[in-house]
Amino acid sequence: MSGSSLGLLFTVTSFGESHGPAIGCVVDGCPPGLALCEADIQAELDRRKPGTSRHVTQRKEPDTVEILSGVFEGKTTGAPIGLLIRNQDQRSQDYGKIVDTFRPGHADYTYWHKYGIRDYRGGGRSSARETAVRVAAGAIAKKWLKERYGVKIRGYMSQLGEITIAFKAWQHVDQNAFFAPNDEVIAQLESYMDQIRAERDSVGAKIEVVAENVPVGWGEPVYDRLDADIAYAMMSINAVKGVEIGDGFDTVAQRGSVHGDELTPAGFASNHAGGVLGGISTGQDIRVSLALKPTSSIPQPRNSIDKAGHAVEMATTGRHDPCVGIRATPIAEAMLALVLIDHALRHRAQNADVQVDTPRIPGRIA
Amino acid sequence: MSGSSLGLLFTVTSFGESHGPAIGCVVDGCPPGLALCEADIQAELDRRKPGTSRHVTQRKEPDTVEILSGVFEGKTTGAPIGLLIRNQDQRSQDYGKIVDTFRPGHADYTYWHKYGIRDYRGGGRSSARETAVRVAAGAIAKKWLKERYGVKIRGYMSQLGEITIAFKAWQHVDQNAFFAPNDEVIAQLESYMDQIRAERDSVGAKIEVVAENVPVGWGEPVYDRLDADIAYAMMSINAVKGVEIGDGFDTVAQRGSVHGDELTPAGFASNHAGGVLGGISTGQDIRVSLALKPTSSIPQPRNSIDKAGHAVEMATTGRHDPCVGIRATPIAEAMLALVLIDHALRHRAQNADVQVDTPRIPGRIA
Amino acid sequence: MSGSSLGLLFTVTSFGESHGPAIGCVVDGCPPGLALCEADIQAELDRRKPGTSRHVTQRKEPDTVEILSGVFEGKTTGAPIGLLIRNQDQRSQDYGKIVDTFRPGHADYTYWHKYGIRDYRGGGRSSARETAVRVAAGAIAKKWLKERYGVKIRGYMSQLGEITIAFKAWQHVDQNAFFAPNDEVIAQLESYMDQIRAERDSVGAKIEVVAENVPVGWGEPVYDRLDADIAYAMMSINAVKGVEIGDGFDTVAQRGSVHGDELTPAGFASNHAGGVLGGISTGQDIRVSLALKPTSSIPQPRNSIDKAGHAVEMATTGRHDPCVGIRATPIAEAMLALVLIDHALRHRAQNADVQVDTPRIPGRIA
Amino acid sequence: MSGSSLGLLFTVTSFGESHGPAIGCVVDGCPPGLALCEADIQAELDRRKPGTSRHVTQRKEPDTVEILSGVFEGKTTGAPIGLLIRNQDQRSQDYGKIVDTFRPGHADYTYWHKYGIRDYRGGGRSSARETAVRVAAGAIAKKWLKERYGVKIRGYMSQLGEITIAFKAWQHVDQNAFFAPNDEVIAQLESYMDQIRAERDSVGAKIEVVAENVPVGWGEPVYDRLDADIAYAMMSINAVKGVEIGDGFDTVAQRGSVHGDELTPAGFASNHAGGVLGGISTGQDIRVSLALKPTSSIPQPRNSIDKAGHAVEMATTGRHDPCVGIRATPIAEAMLALVLIDHALRHRAQNADVQVDTPRIPGRIA
Repeated sequence: MSGSSLGLLFTVTSFGESHGPAIGCVVDGCPPGLALCEADIQAELDRRKPGTSRHVTQRKEPDTVEILSGVFEGKTTGAPIGLLIRNQDQRSQDYGKIVDTFRPGHADYTYWHKYGIRDYRGGGRSSARETAVRVAAGAIAKKWLKERYGVKIRGYMSQLGEITIAFKAWQHVDQNAFFAPNDEVIAQLESYMDQIRAERDSVGAKIEVVAENVPVGWGEPVYDRLDADIAYAMMSINAVKGVEIGDGFDTVAQRGSVHGDELTPAGFASNHAGGVLGGISTGQDIRVSLALKPTSSIPQPRNSIDKAGHAVEMATTGRHDPCVGIRATPIAEAMLALVLIDHALRHRAQNADVQVDTPRIPGRIA
Repeated sequence: MSGSSLGLLFTVTSFGESHGPAIGCVVDGCPPGLALCEADIQAELDRRKPGTSRHVTQRKEPDTVEILSGVFEGKTTGAPIGLLIRNQDQRSQDYGKIVDTFRPGHADYTYWHKYGIRDYRGGGRSSARETAVRVAAGAIAKKWLKERYGVKIRGYMSQLGEITIAFKAWQHVDQNAFFAPNDEVIAQLESYMDQIRAERDSVGAKIEVVAENVPVGWGEPVYDRLDADIAYAMMSINAVKGVEIGDGFDTVAQRGSVHGDELTPAGFASNHAGGVLGGISTGQDIRVSLALKPTSSIPQPRNSIDKAGHAVEMATTGRHDPCVGIRATPIAEAMLALVLIDHALRHRAQNADVQVDTPRIPGRIA
Repeated sequence: MSGSSLGLLFTVTSFGESHGPAIGCVVDGCPPGLALCEADIQAELDRRKPGTSRHVTQRKEPDTVEILSGVFEGKTTGAPIGLLIRNQDQRSQDYGKIVDTFRPGHADYTYWHKYGIRDYRGGGRSSARETAVRVAAGAIAKKWLKERYGVKIRGYMSQLGEITIAFKAWQHVDQNAFFAPNDEVIAQLESYMDQIRAERDSVGAKIEVVAENVPVGWGEPVYDRLDADIAYAMMSINAVKGVEIGDGFDTVAQRGSVHGDELTPAGFASNHAGGVLGGISTGQDIRVSLALKPTSSIPQPRNSIDKAGHAVEMATTGRHDPCVGIRATPIAEAMLALVLIDHALRHRAQNADVQVDTPRIPGRIA
Repeated sequence: MSGSSLGLLFTVTSFGESHGPAIGCVVDGCPPGLALCEADIQAELDRRKPGTSRHVTQRKEPDTVEILSGVFEGKTTGAPIGLLIRNQDQRSQDYGKIVDTFRPGHADYTYWHKYGIRDYRGGGRSSARETAVRVAAGAIAKKWLKERYGVKIRGYMSQLGEITIAFKAWQHVDQNAFFAPNDEVIAQLESYMDQIRAERDSVGAKIEVVAENVPVGWGEPVYDRLDADIAYAMMSINAVKGVEIGDGFDTVAQRGSVHGDELTPAGFASNHAGGVLGGISTGQDIRVSLALKPTSSIPQPRNSIDKAGHAVEMATTGRHDPCVGIRATPIAEAMLALVLIDHALRHRAQNADVQVDTPRIPGRIA
């Protein structure tokens, strides 16, 4: 396993390059009996796909998914689910510039030295195109979690470059190109992105993801804690440089008398923990934040070296997202879903027989 | 596997509770031929052990480690290394208060509902006492990484509650109780901690860890990226709520023209990436930050519930660290070492035959 | 992971049903730089494919493989290799008889009770059609082992029903429908099979597989021994009921003075061990035998029950191999290759630095 | 992981050498709430321990087990269970003869070349002493399987060298040194073994293991089939060279009309399959056979080489079992238990919600 599988019991094994014939995955371990069709997956893929606004890459990919196995008469059978997405828009552009040079901020230099060979077309395996696979697999996880446990997973953009986006309401998230939970900032975000593009630059973003109705008990300490696996899954997304659970880095300056969430018969009194204690879900909302760095591909000249070790100056042309964070919300949701379903299965493997008289309190006081 | 193993090829499997007879682990996959004795491990354990200053728990544990296997005539044999640390100071205190109640901020509530049974003595399995095992295993990893690749792993505290600690020099780190890299702030930190204790409260901390001389090429995308596995390992440490690689959350507001580290024949011109691109080490320093929440056990009364679901008020007495972050530096170093050695082994499994003419540039311009 | 992945470092993850749109797999962990094209894989698939003689199923499947990823400009890149084989001949036969009944000797009853849903078309996931995937993945493993280490993996049929087939020469194996290493028995085997079919019955077979030139040192005791992983891989093949290494069950009545292979400076004096000692390859030929049971689908009536639990009588019509062992040789070779490459990679991960002055003796005295 | 862990969800990680300070393991994933004390484990260890008759090694090891963690107030907590067995009788014998020579049939040559270092004392890591750990871990698995599912696992010797032992009744098995299910053959077996020892030779054995009351549904095709994992586990036992499920190698010459077990409303009509179809348990008895080779350590001179590659003649003195198969029955039972519990947990992870109206028929017609 050179690292392309995720999850112990609900396992996604991914393949595919940006400009190869196809991307896809095998989802192994999905419980049988889940109603599933291609439209269920397509709906999530459409939220992530490129070319939907002027603020993202203009590559035209329908991202049409085909289910190859594991579903019979509209239901999952427990057998592995093969998913296939054919690449459509591998533009025959001139790769001459990047064949022998390493783009700053990209994986060109590291892939070259690691493997001694590199599919340079569109970033090859290191391209964010692979995240479509995560969204496809995550769609299955999301559906099962919702139907089986009522778990609801949603995300939004909370910051775009210097602009903090106040949370207003969930309903706004899917009504703008940024997954912003606030209809009043859209015009500002659009002009900001237009300015970034005019400056031939890129910018980072911050994403929040929340899972509601997660039962108490998911997570496998002391290493495979729920939050540890979430951190892994989020940091594995292209461009992510930081992950927080609950109050995250704000806890450094907090006092214990503030941070520790009090329990009451009516529910938890607060949620500084972000829904995880001792690596196990508490029944509170799971709250995760992630930082995405600015796109490395920018059309202004930068210093680098070529394969012979000589200094070169290069600007990255072609089709790129000026902020990779803009399309990251569905990906982050998918990764959270994949971690949660894996832990749901792991939990019941060991603890299916556990019975406790103690009442489970609500995640928050109503 | 209910979550007590870490690493695919250099695998640590941990066991033990805070007040049971012993803690320990099995380290499987250590390359043969490494000179190893108990003193090598003990040196690292002594850096983490409790009772060394008034700012940490007063539990007296010598943390004496015994090597049970895997070492012959002073060298590792390639067989699994059994490590054993007997618990010595399981004070027979009155646990009456916590047997039937759930301490806020602790894993009591989650363990109880997950397993239906709970070793309440000192937190049982969820106690930070288990981190001694990580430090012991990490000592082996550190030694091998240093001898085989010249990798140097060091950490320090960069913030204690509201107090930011400027980095002055590495030499100071092991000369104070806080692992602070600055001898001028020690008095301030001490009085700050005295005040926190006087207020019967606790506080968080921020830790930085750095690995130097890591070769280019470690990390297994697209999921088992080096940074993803680091995030997992760090978030699995008790009380950690956030992890950053390189510039972390600062990248949100950065521009691509600033963030992307330029390459020159003399080395990388900067290190915003924190030593990882595309999930693979670049040869730059690996830079990791982590946030630790304030200790949940504080001696002031807090609201909670008992096993019957009734409201109770409870203060946590007993021996506790007023800031769990104070002893976290050796633990974070150990976790970074464990991730790095695992990826060193994974890398060469697949890529041992790779040969590239391209020169490897220094991690930074000298 | 519900069991569809094989191998720790060279990992095959399989998907697909007998009568679904496609079967295939992801091969993760293949070392980069291996020359690979579809014809390399097709050659092995053609050895296994159905319809090539009157003694096997008449289903017409070209088993055309498409490489979806992981190969660039004719070489593997280290990225996962997606392989796809479209099903072509899903005859629209009448499944009415088996939809609600359980065929004796088949997985119908167990799949139904395990998953609560069953793709009954052609056996669905439990069909031996999945073994094409193993052969495809094994072709990659075989090629790498041969080019990197000179390992040569070959198999043959040593028994068909009551007929023992004496080994004459390797050259005969690929020149008859049975993979028999003896051109003098072919007529006998053909008339035997004709007779079995005339009796509307089926019969078992025994297959031998040999790997030459395996270096000393592969295998990871104490559990993941080379022979243990071989036993696992072989027993995972449909219809296999027994596995032997070296002298296998004959060792029960052997004396230690006979069995233990003596070492001489010119090589091992014998090979009762079958090339494995202490779970590690010795440099001798790896010798494996496997027993395949008779095909369960036979056209004579048998007693069974239906989904309501009522007694039924059923004969299995349709296209079936009268001896599943006939096409098993390429599959067994593939499985051995998959185990060997995995252990080659695991070995060098831990032991890449090992240097021993002791000479390695030949596997056999020349 | 260099191969010392077994099981995906009920994971045993073993450590220890024959003549080191201790052997032991970590059992991770045991469901909580199982009543467990050291006596439960000791009872199984005592069945395997050396020195109990003149037909086995005279090494005196009480094999006293200590539970280090994972049990609280007499019940498992779900945390990893640390087990420790101190070695007592590491006789300070003269190892001079084997330090620099490789015993035929032993792992000396392979360990030396694999690791470049070798704990030669008593075979070090390759010693069958490690099997005590398996028996200890297996005792926990056995207890849980029995209490939770009523599964009963028993084994016996069916052949000692040339002597076939007819099954008479289970009650005899634990009443003789051979685990023979027949009180009438004991005298013959004893004189046979006396003769083997007099001839300074050793001999092989065949063991049968049976698991009753295994529910239908355990096993994870297409690779992690129940029978595949059993084959792996059995072949990982020192000296095992062959494994059969059900009729095993006898199926080669069987007809399909005989082999395929018919189903009736009253139960399966026969059990040629050995309780597994399509890699999943059927509800029939799980029947497994294994072949153990003769002990490699024999006191007559044999040819070998030394570390310099020179020819030597060596006889193995010291304390050895003249037939390693004699003490293998408890080990084989333990391995079967470990595989079954792992699959019990894996099955319910994915399929806990499956409900089928179809009645489950008895494993055999009453």
